[in-house]
Amino acid sequence: MLVVQKFGGTSVGSVERIRAVARRALLTKRAGHRVVVIVSAMAGETDRLLNLAQQIAPRPDRRELDVLVATGEQVSVALLALAIRAEGGLATSYLGHQVHIHTDSAFSRARIHHVDANTLFTAIGQDQIPVVAGFQGIDDEGNITTLGRGGSDTSAVAVAAALHADVCEIFTDVDGVYTADPAICPDARKIARISYEEMLELASLGAKVLQIRSVEVASKYRVPVHVRSSFNDEEGTMVVGEEAPMEKVVVTGVTLDRKDSRITIRGLPYRAGIQAEVFRPLGSVGIVLDMIVQNPPTAGRMDLSFTLPRADLAQGLELMRKLAGELDAHEVVSDERIAKVSIVGLGMRSHAGVAQRMFDLLAREGVDILMITTSEIRVSCVIDERYGELAVRVLHDGFDVGKHAG
Amino acid sequence: MLVVQKFGGTSVGSVERIRAVARRALLTKRAGHRVVVIVSAMAGETDRLLNLAQQIAPRPDRRELDVLVATGEQVSVALLALAIRAEGGLATSYLGHQVHIHTDSAFSRARIHHVDANTLFTAIGQDQIPVVAGFQGIDDEGNITTLGRGGSDTSAVAVAAALHADVCEIFTDVDGVYTADPAICPDARKIARISYEEMLELASLGAKVLQIRSVEVASKYRVPVHVRSSFNDEEGTMVVGEEAPMEKVVVTGVTLDRKDSRITIRGLPYRAGIQAEVFRPLGSVGIVLDMIVQNPPTAGRMDLSFTLPRADLAQGLELMRKLAGELDAHEVVSDERIAKVSIVGLGMRSHAGVAQRMFDLLAREGVDILMITTSEIRVSCVIDERYGELAVRVLHDGFDVGKHAG
Repeated sequence: MLVVQKFGGTSVGSVERIRAVARRALLTKRAGHRVVVIVSAMAGETDRLLNLAQQIAPRPDRRELDVLVATGEQVSVALLALAIRAEGGLATSYLGHQVHIHTDSAFSRARIHHVDANTLFTAIGQDQIPVVAGFQGIDDEGNITTLGRGGSDTSAVAVAAALHADVCEIFTDVDGVYTADPAICPDARKIARISYEEMLELASLGAKVLQIRSVEVASKYRVPVHVRSSFNDEEGTMVVGEEAPMEKVVVTGVTLDRKDSRITIRGLPYRAGIQAEVFRPLGSVGIVLDMIVQNPPTAGRMDLSFTLPRADLAQGLELMRKLAGELDAHEVVSDERIAKVSIVGLGMRSHAGVAQRMFDLLAREGVDILMITTSEIRVSCVIDERYGELAVRVLHDGFDVGKHAG
Repeated sequence: MLVVQKFGGTSVGSVERIRAVARRALLTKRAGHRVVVIVSAMAGETDRLLNLAQQIAPRPDRRELDVLVATGEQVSVALLALAIRAEGGLATSYLGHQVHIHTDSAFSRARIHHVDANTLFTAIGQDQIPVVAGFQGIDDEGNITTLGRGGSDTSAVAVAAALHADVCEIFTDVDGVYTADPAICPDARKIARISYEEMLELASLGAKVLQIRSVEVASKYRVPVHVRSSFNDEEGTMVVGEEAPMEKVVVTGVTLDRKDSRITIRGLPYRAGIQAEVFRPLGSVGIVLDMIVQNPPTAGRMDLSFTLPRADLAQGLELMRKLAGELDAHEVVSDERIAKVSIVGLGMRSHAGVAQRMFDLLAREGVDILMITTSEIRVSCVIDERYGELAVRVLHDGFDVGKHAG
């Protein structure tokens, strides 16, 4: 097998842990596999560097910021290559530009266009363990770029795709993907296999196990991803293409997202293009909206609700109050303490009434549903934050998620 | 003018100092010059990184070590570029591989073959201040290399040569090159102009102002080098090609080197090739000798003396005692506390009796001379370390060095 192993910042957070990672990679190698390792910066290093930049420039240039933070992974690959050698293996470190991880030029959030596998194949052919810097790439002009927080996951999957690896192992500080947050839901169980589509929905809903972009890349190139703990040898969760047996499960996971707040504009005069007028000022200051709900207009007026990150609420409210005055809306109200609870599952495609059952389960516990959005394999409800954990437990139990898991 | 400015680790040792460097570069720019800046790693950073490597591997692989320590300069260039931008200037950072500082593959002590000036000229043409990482380069295979301690001086001079810069300013924590160490010799004076040849002798004799290699490169490409303080605006020392007026001075500087120790093998049987037999075991463990003195053989036996770094004395003695037994030499003695005092000056070429006068001056003070070596523009004497400072003052005074300076 050709195995790509990715270790995050916590896994390489100290000299001792780097040694442990080296031993783990060598164990895989000595079991007869070909191994490529991707690493993040040592835990805390990226923040240390960003803090230095912040002291010098409150709004630092993004190209230079990428040059700065890319050193974090460079330190990790050199130390890990040294550690593998110290344990008796052969290892060579590679930076983004050395293995041609080509990206666009969107500094600090670049997207990978292409990875050249030749250098890595040559190293593997020489019995080496190539140790590749995650998170970083190079654009067409030779500038260093970085992929955004969690970008090393994407580096790992992209390298695995380029090498046609048999599996991309993501070692992390949790031991897999769970049906719900075990801290909230004692019945939550580790999911043995999950589809890319479901993982995407879970990732975008606040299960922070994998960077969303990495799941997209894995799905596009059909790279099997194994999310597992760096602290033990247990099997974690396999993220794979859709398979027939999965269909049996209706709901694969329940998630809770408590980062958002809500603004409602009441009595907004209805006319064509009014939505664009409302959202333009928010977009122009970089506020990203999540859910948007609009009631059908009555007597020429309507209510418009949307959710936005809590950190942006004050600024959003100010903009909307100003706008409401200009547009002659009735009032603007906000709710800082909302939560979004979601159920995700491929099985929803073939099961009718899943959303209805979700509403019933919540209603039975007296949980008011404030907003609803759905996708083909997901239903999300915005509720009062106080009922967030209760809602997760009720849905997890009501859909038998813990029992079906695996 | 096109000015290359190099700032060492102390000059960029903190956020505050990086800001000061940014202001200095911008001041030069705003005075109408084109400016390229070379920087070292922040003071202490290289040692921190080497310490990490040491914890992982007692004898770290040199390629990986270079990948590791090269991050120090990468952090500096990014922060300085941010600082110049924060002060209202235009700046872009460049790493060794981005400005094609091509070197051989001698990791940790690579030599620069070639610098491609195109990228830098383009940036300068866009009114930018390019900020280039010192100390690092790239070999033909794309591996990161470093130039050895003090290598940023050489980076700066090599970049200045490639750009045909008018001057390469080396900013450091001293304000120039002195006729002798002012701490030893109160009469010591800053030298206004010195030739490459003299600077080479001074650099190799322990005046740690410039890396020797940088002076060689400056001399080869005739780059005027200005050694000056990063803490004030005073003129420092210009290191330039040989000029007629300099000939007036016989001795340009007096140096003292207290790093070495001495081993003497007495009664070594003389035969062809015996020296190679003696020095082979030392070379094989990497001990570098400085001075070697051999007396003419008497009755088939001779004495052989050499100096070596004090840190290597114990190992060197052990090897020589073993060898003396095998070769049937009479005895091996050592002296840990020696000093080498030297006078340097282009004027020696045209003045007879300079060495004789040195011996006289030392003899008058009762300083025994243990070993002597000379070059065309230098005379060095090994003496008891206790008399080192006295010898410097006597020679500085006796040759009127302080008065001629400048």
